[in-house]
Amino acid sequence: MVKITFPDGAVREYAEGITAMEIAKSISEGLAKKVLAASVNGNIWDATRPISQDSSLKLLTWNEADGKYAFWHSSAHLMAEAVEATFPGVKFWVGPPVEKGYGFYYDIDLGDHKLTEEDLTKLEKKMSELARQNNPYIRKEISKADALKYFTEKGDEYKLDLLQNLEDGNITFYTQGGFTDLCRGPHVPGTGVIKAIKLTSIAGAYWKGDEKNKQLTRIYGVTFPTQKELDEYLQMLEEAKKRDHRKLGKELGIYTMDDDVGQGLIMWLPNGTVVIEELEKLAKETELKAGYKRVVTPHIAKESMYLTSGHLPYYADSMYPPMEVDGEKYYLKAMNCPHHHKIFAAEPKSYRDLPYRLAEYGTVYRYEQSGELFGLMRVRCLHMNDAHIYCTREQFADEFRAVNEMYQKYFAIFGIEKYVMRLSLHSPDKLGKKYVNEPELWKETEEMVRRVLIESKIPYVEVQDEAAFYGPKIDVQIFSVIGREFTLATNQVDFSQGASFKLQYTTPDNRTETPLIIHRAPLGTHERFIGFLLEHYAGNLPLWLSPLQVKVLPISDKFIDYARMVLDTLKNADIRAEIDDRPEKIGRKIRDTEMAKVPYMLIIGEKEVNEQKVSVRRHRKGDLGALDVQVFVNQAVAEIRERVSG
Amino acid sequence: MVKITFPDGAVREYAEGITAMEIAKSISEGLAKKVLAASVNGNIWDATRPISQDSSLKLLTWNEADGKYAFWHSSAHLMAEAVEATFPGVKFWVGPPVEKGYGFYYDIDLGDHKLTEEDLTKLEKKMSELARQNNPYIRKEISKADALKYFTEKGDEYKLDLLQNLEDGNITFYTQGGFTDLCRGPHVPGTGVIKAIKLTSIAGAYWKGDEKNKQLTRIYGVTFPTQKELDEYLQMLEEAKKRDHRKLGKELGIYTMDDDVGQGLIMWLPNGTVVIEELEKLAKETELKAGYKRVVTPHIAKESMYLTSGHLPYYADSMYPPMEVDGEKYYLKAMNCPHHHKIFAAEPKSYRDLPYRLAEYGTVYRYEQSGELFGLMRVRCLHMNDAHIYCTREQFADEFRAVNEMYQKYFAIFGIEKYVMRLSLHSPDKLGKKYVNEPELWKETEEMVRRVLIESKIPYVEVQDEAAFYGPKIDVQIFSVIGREFTLATNQVDFSQGASFKLQYTTPDNRTETPLIIHRAPLGTHERFIGFLLEHYAGNLPLWLSPLQVKVLPISDKFIDYARMVLDTLKNADIRAEIDDRPEKIGRKIRDTEMAKVPYMLIIGEKEVNEQKVSVRRHRKGDLGALDVQVFVNQAVAEIRERVSG
Repeated sequence: MVKITFPDGAVREYAEGITAMEIAKSISEGLAKKVLAASVNGNIWDATRPISQDSSLKLLTWNEADGKYAFWHSSAHLMAEAVEATFPGVKFWVGPPVEKGYGFYYDIDLGDHKLTEEDLTKLEKKMSELARQNNPYIRKEISKADALKYFTEKGDEYKLDLLQNLEDGNITFYTQGGFTDLCRGPHVPGTGVIKAIKLTSIAGAYWKGDEKNKQLTRIYGVTFPTQKELDEYLQMLEEAKKRDHRKLGKELGIYTMDDDVGQGLIMWLPNGTVVIEELEKLAKETELKAGYKRVVTPHIAKESMYLTSGHLPYYADSMYPPMEVDGEKYYLKAMNCPHHHKIFAAEPKSYRDLPYRLAEYGTVYRYEQSGELFGLMRVRCLHMNDAHIYCTREQFADEFRAVNEMYQKYFAIFGIEKYVMRLSLHSPDKLGKKYVNEPELWKETEEMVRRVLIESKIPYVEVQDEAAFYGPKIDVQIFSVIGREFTLATNQVDFSQGASFKLQYTTPDNRTETPLIIHRAPLGTHERFIGFLLEHYAGNLPLWLSPLQVKVLPISDKFIDYARMVLDTLKNADIRAEIDDRPEKIGRKIRDTEMAKVPYMLIIGEKEVNEQKVSVRRHRKGDLGALDVQVFVNQAVAEIRERVSG
Repeated sequence: MVKITFPDGAVREYAEGITAMEIAKSISEGLAKKVLAASVNGNIWDATRPISQDSSLKLLTWNEADGKYAFWHSSAHLMAEAVEATFPGVKFWVGPPVEKGYGFYYDIDLGDHKLTEEDLTKLEKKMSELARQNNPYIRKEISKADALKYFTEKGDEYKLDLLQNLEDGNITFYTQGGFTDLCRGPHVPGTGVIKAIKLTSIAGAYWKGDEKNKQLTRIYGVTFPTQKELDEYLQMLEEAKKRDHRKLGKELGIYTMDDDVGQGLIMWLPNGTVVIEELEKLAKETELKAGYKRVVTPHIAKESMYLTSGHLPYYADSMYPPMEVDGEKYYLKAMNCPHHHKIFAAEPKSYRDLPYRLAEYGTVYRYEQSGELFGLMRVRCLHMNDAHIYCTREQFADEFRAVNEMYQKYFAIFGIEKYVMRLSLHSPDKLGKKYVNEPELWKETEEMVRRVLIESKIPYVEVQDEAAFYGPKIDVQIFSVIGREFTLATNQVDFSQGASFKLQYTTPDNRTETPLIIHRAPLGTHERFIGFLLEHYAGNLPLWLSPLQVKVLPISDKFIDYARMVLDTLKNADIRAEIDDRPEKIGRKIRDTEMAKVPYMLIIGEKEVNEQKVSVRRHRKGDLGALDVQVFVNQAVAEIRERVSG
């Protein structure tokens, strides 16, 4: 018999050799149908693999990232099977799921064959046919000699190359239907779960990423457990293309980049800067009310600072290289915390000063591989809505709750309806290695965080063994209106850096204590958040965020004086307004203003001048009728002040 | 006969060998008394030196920096004479005027004698006695051999060392009274002009600045043409010591520095950040009204950018060293202009877009020698009130006038009553070398700038041959209330970088033209300006700039509820307020609040609660009586909104 421990802590006994799938069936057939793979003692396994010792078990379905991984990995094998059946004699390199995304690919040597769109359709059909056969994915442990023999006979030099680096005794083959692959697994139980298939694109890929090598054909595909999910996904992709923040960013004059400035370094154009300043104003107002103090720190610091913080040498690859000045190394900061800790330490602190909350829209520089850079989403210079809260243990829960409430307040303002917090916990067996050796503090803070998340009814998932070195970590994931997921920010509980930086406060009884620290950044970085907002709003920013809020359109030159008076009234009310005084037809003026996604147009002709009114037109809504200028101004000012999400 | 050209362009003939002093006397005795030296063909000369060829001539008095230079340099010789008379056998190294400051020093080897305060008094007396003799400073050209002989006999190895590096034929001695020195000059005509003398301090100074060498005694002194000026200067120094921005900066929690961050890198504490944000708010408001657009740019750029701008290689010593990333060199920016030029170029521009004004409180990094660093005044990271105006030639004068008006508006807000603009012009004979070879543009822009300064009745001085490479330059100098001078900012006219960066706009007739550029920074840098403000206001910042504006002081615990209600009312009106709810006596609370220089105290006791009022106490003014809370709030809000200078 083996003892199986379930995620809720329950323990049951089963006959040795039982599989995760059999356990799932013993619970319910419905559950078993959903099982794609299993986590056994933290390792991801085939659900059909026999368990021969006491184990912790988590069943993995489509809801888990690891479940999707097995699903897409299995889909890559299915595609390879279809390719081999259609083009006999082709050779295979590797076929993994896409990293941080949807679907999978396989790099294939197709010989002389040049793949066409029609081929993709043909392959999709073949894959569906093979999927309907519901062939099991069969795992087989194999000796290196036998494996080499197999691929030598098959004549696949790519797999032989892979085999060179594998250790005998550790090699497995997977076979489904007529296709066998060298593979670590895991895989789904059978091809039948793959119900919806789309091969999305073809690309060239040099073998091993080296352009001196042969170029292989990379086929990308995506699969889902239902056709509905696939359709929704493809529709979301289509919508996301229209809402591409790089396209909108250019059209709306939000940002630019330049070769002489450098890759991944955003220059914010005037319109983008308005958005930045509105976001910072929101953050400042919110943080002021929440008792934060603002600071300004330089963008560089000496090596010694990052040795103290522990970022060096471990994080060096993600930092810009040092500059040597006066015989000392200076680094561009990749995080604001050490500077804030120094500010905490600059003046003596007592319990009366705590919680001490330091906020800064800090600019940090992080080295990303140039191939990883992507518009505003992956950049090298980030403006972060950063803050650090120094508090006592007693204050921690309230502070953490307040941070979560701030997130939720922001989500409401931006109409973010779907979000999830991913709580990363430590692993007790790695204390003193991967994690600070403070078993009690880990338990205490993890439990505090969990309790707050539950009490605040915040959707969250727990992940084992992914905490930061110095405390539990919460990744905040938000979804745009079209359902695309963005990692907005990471919050961290920190009971280590306070000690590293020798931060102290005196207690009421005159002892000295080290504060706990909360790192938080609810609005993430300007770069990623504005990229998100452009997609989320499809570029139709709400009034309060719009660089230009109102455009005054005189129908002809005769009405320009009145139009200018209206413009002045708007400006005096701090509304961002312009006039279109070009000698163009009103139709053209309206069209151009709609194209620029300006929220309000005030059209002024004879009737408006006579009645001392303005004809109001709302972007994407059309004519709202004639209003007194002051009535319009009051409405607009209220809409701005209340930050109506549009 | 020689032809002498005067600064106003007048030309007169004099007998060959005439001196500047004789020419001055021929104009008026009153003028001659003021002459300290002369500029002859751009070289600074003794006023008593014969002129033997056609020359341009400018008489130098105490009003000119070069006149003061000769005065203090001559004072150093006078001090040396007194030292030698008092301590025979001493040896002299060098004795120049202080760079960028007042007075002079001399580094002297006094043998075993340790100088005391009493010695200084004795030396001052001796100097006065020698000054009253009005001994002439007599210039003598001398051969290297004779000079070596003189100092060998005198036994002064320091002067012999200096002589090693001098070329024969180029060596001069100066003698006044009984003292002879190796010296290039120039000097004042005689010791009699030195009417007021103060030896201010004694310091150690290693010979040649090398700590392996012998330590010499450095005596600092300052002299003036009248006792009144000396008294005023000493009083100003005394006052400046009390107003030292480093002392006030610490007391008021404005800024801090840290060894692990690095030298010259300011970390702005919460109170300093409030001041920064108020200044930025002022700048934003002012610039918005003046039609500026704001941008945000990264702090680094590639080498190629600074090769285009011409900052590299010439300015490399003032920049941080490069970081090598992806095989390319990145520099921390030392100026914002190139980034702004790139933003101008990011989207096509037409004459309709001009003037195009880009503003950013940009952070720049400049390498200063660590010995030059000084509090907020000389730092390595600067937040600059920067902007660049791109305009046509026709728009230039109006734009430049508007910039000056912005300066004057700021001067009024900060109560800066004394200021001067120093207009640096090019030198026609250096066109194509030190200056862009655009003779017409130089004439045109210099004349435009001069005309605007005159029309705007702005006090200014003109300086030849000190322009920037790419256009005339205006250094703005302001004086704090105690009369100390600060260089606030440099404005530049630029008709070169536009072409270097290939900036263009299309004209109404569809040609392309390169814009003129104005570089401007009316509020200078946060670092220097806040340093100035701390001295200017002696730390008593006006209400709108005060980090904490109002402190509510309940006389006892009984009145805390009402005090808290008052606090909420203040906060709701966006007044920065706190409560002192410590169990301390009211006298102590008032004293602590006065020490912290908080502008308003609201004292709350039984009477105030009963009458629903607050007793108002103004810092440095005392009791203002009891007011309704709302009346006080309205007054304070108005004082903040109008930025009353306090």
